Amino acid sequence: MKNKQQVLTKRPIGFPERDTWELREEEIVEPAEGELLIEQHYISLDPAMRGWMNSSRSYIEPVQVGDVMRAGTIGEVIKANNHPKFKEGDILSGWGGVQQYTTTDGKDYYPVDTNLASEPVYIGTLGMPGMTAYFGITEVGKIKEGDVVVVSGAAGAVGSVVGQIAKIKGCRVVGIAGGDEKCKYLIEELGFDDAINYKAGNLRKDLKKACPQGIDVYFDNVGGEILDTVLTRINMHARIVICGAISQYNETAPKGPANYLSLLVNRATMQGMVVFDYAKRYGEAALQMGKWMQEGRLKSREDVHEGIENFYDTFSRLFNGEKIGKLVLDVREK
Amino acid sequence: MKNKQQVLTKRPIGFPERDTWELREEEIVEPAEGELLIEQHYISLDPAMRGWMNSSRSYIEPVQVGDVMRAGTIGEVIKANNHPKFKEGDILSGWGGVQQYTTTDGKDYYPVDTNLASEPVYIGTLGMPGMTAYFGITEVGKIKEGDVVVVSGAAGAVGSVVGQIAKIKGCRVVGIAGGDEKCKYLIEELGFDDAINYKAGNLRKDLKKACPQGIDVYFDNVGGEILDTVLTRINMHARIVICGAISQYNETAPKGPANYLSLLVNRATMQGMVVFDYAKRYGEAALQMGKWMQEGRLKSREDVHEGIENFYDTFSRLFNGEKIGKLVLDVREK
Repeated sequence: MKNKQQVLTKRPIGFPERDTWELREEEIVEPAEGELLIEQHYISLDPAMRGWMNSSRSYIEPVQVGDVMRAGTIGEVIKANNHPKFKEGDILSGWGGVQQYTTTDGKDYYPVDTNLASEPVYIGTLGMPGMTAYFGITEVGKIKEGDVVVVSGAAGAVGSVVGQIAKIKGCRVVGIAGGDEKCKYLIEELGFDDAINYKAGNLRKDLKKACPQGIDVYFDNVGGEILDTVLTRINMHARIVICGAISQYNETAPKGPANYLSLLVNRATMQGMVVFDYAKRYGEAALQMGKWMQEGRLKSREDVHEGIENFYDTFSRLFNGEKIGKLVLDVREK
Repeated sequence: MKNKQQVLTKRPIGFPERDTWELREEEIVEPAEGELLIEQHYISLDPAMRGWMNSSRSYIEPVQVGDVMRAGTIGEVIKANNHPKFKEGDILSGWGGVQQYTTTDGKDYYPVDTNLASEPVYIGTLGMPGMTAYFGITEVGKIKEGDVVVVSGAAGAVGSVVGQIAKIKGCRVVGIAGGDEKCKYLIEELGFDDAINYKAGNLRKDLKKACPQGIDVYFDNVGGEILDTVLTRINMHARIVICGAISQYNETAPKGPANYLSLLVNRATMQGMVVFDYAKRYGEAALQMGKWMQEGRLKSREDVHEGIENFYDTFSRLFNGEKIGKLVLDVREK
């Protein structure tokens, strides 16, 4: 039994080339006393991965060249060597990396109940992306009933949850996404009030039409032109949540929001967030979101691909727009 | 007796040309029943004036072409026609515009006591710039003892007060200004801990040296490269007060802060402010700042020029760096 891994071979400049990772086959490391061996089932693909590959100062250590690529995972304990907390058969979520087997002391792993939701959901709507959405829109965006909320990357793992939570909280919700299919999904499946296909090229006009009363809260996953256009439509005391900037992650010269002085004119706030700060409250959020899911008020969609060999192509889908919902890769050997 | 006025002739593109205003001589308008005639002594020159000349949506109505240029003023009531509040001899501050005489119902004018401070101080440290500094650094910047505070445009009317208040509140204060003379003034006269001459061209290095522990609060008057460089040095939960962007006001294509994702990494906040929101609390601030001035803890410097004919050249000093402290123009006929 071998362990296939995707290892970082170099620091990319711009969009990563195929040889930025290399598929390596290693012997499985037997768990020492107090350790676990986890067979990973799914890995989570997140835009943030691109940032982790840069050497620059950030909210988390960069992945080192030569190391297994960092990724959130969900998998099953197949060997527990006198582990104090977990036993064989437990399904654990954690930072297992892009590999099929992880040998670990189990620190920072937590068990999930797959009777309540499927495994991919636990690295999506009930995992980091869901937590990001929950705390970002409630704590940083400070939404209240009646707010006009706009979210970009709206059909993605974070954006789709942001919009649904805002709807549950009584806001008017407009999603921005790339393509008519995604917009249709947002309105018809997720109940957004409106959706704008930014690829149609009329963002400014479409935004004005969708938000005639202006924008109270903007949850930004993309940066670039979309952020800049939204800034022209914000209301007094608007809150802008900076969660990500997928349009800029592969740019060698990132673009700042030229219209940022709209913050001054409107006494508005632009605030950055990192989900890890809310770690102590994940349980509370998962409970609430699980309840909404059971009630059918919060929907989750996963885009599942297969084969650790296909990591690069799957990763690329994060940036080329070819996915709806949470992107995951089933890394089990078939 | 004639009233000389500076009238807006056109909307400037980029830095205003000399013929953007025209000196007009009008008959003085006699005050009607319940009105006042004010002989203006000083007008306030503020970078914000540049924004008021644009037609675009902002925090205040644009000055219309053909109208007297908007300006804060201080002057003396020389005729009161049964005015309910003010009498001849009162010294009033208000929005009298760039002219020698203003006929008004007195709404939004307030009386000042020139025994306590000189007239120019009432349109400087005890006027709008001082109020901006006070509420900006305390309410938006939320400074607390021990914070590292950086302020740009530090030798200006707002910046110099921001830095002094932060010192009074127990912060380490670093000013950014253009030129060695200004830096010397900040350290030797105003008691800043350090000052950086950005024109020396080593801002990044100098900032690192001046703030080895990073930056907790940045009060921005300038935007552009300076804002972008500061963003690379902010601490976790830093607050950035967007008060102005003098480097951008005359740009036809304003530049956004390319490093704004530092807000995300550091869970930092960038918030815009407009002083008018604190109008109800001006009295409280003036009282506090007046006390500090009497105690010698808050110093004020005015750069006084003469002659309404020289409005254009004086206005230009706001942008060419040729002034320290509050720029005012004595518009009385000599």
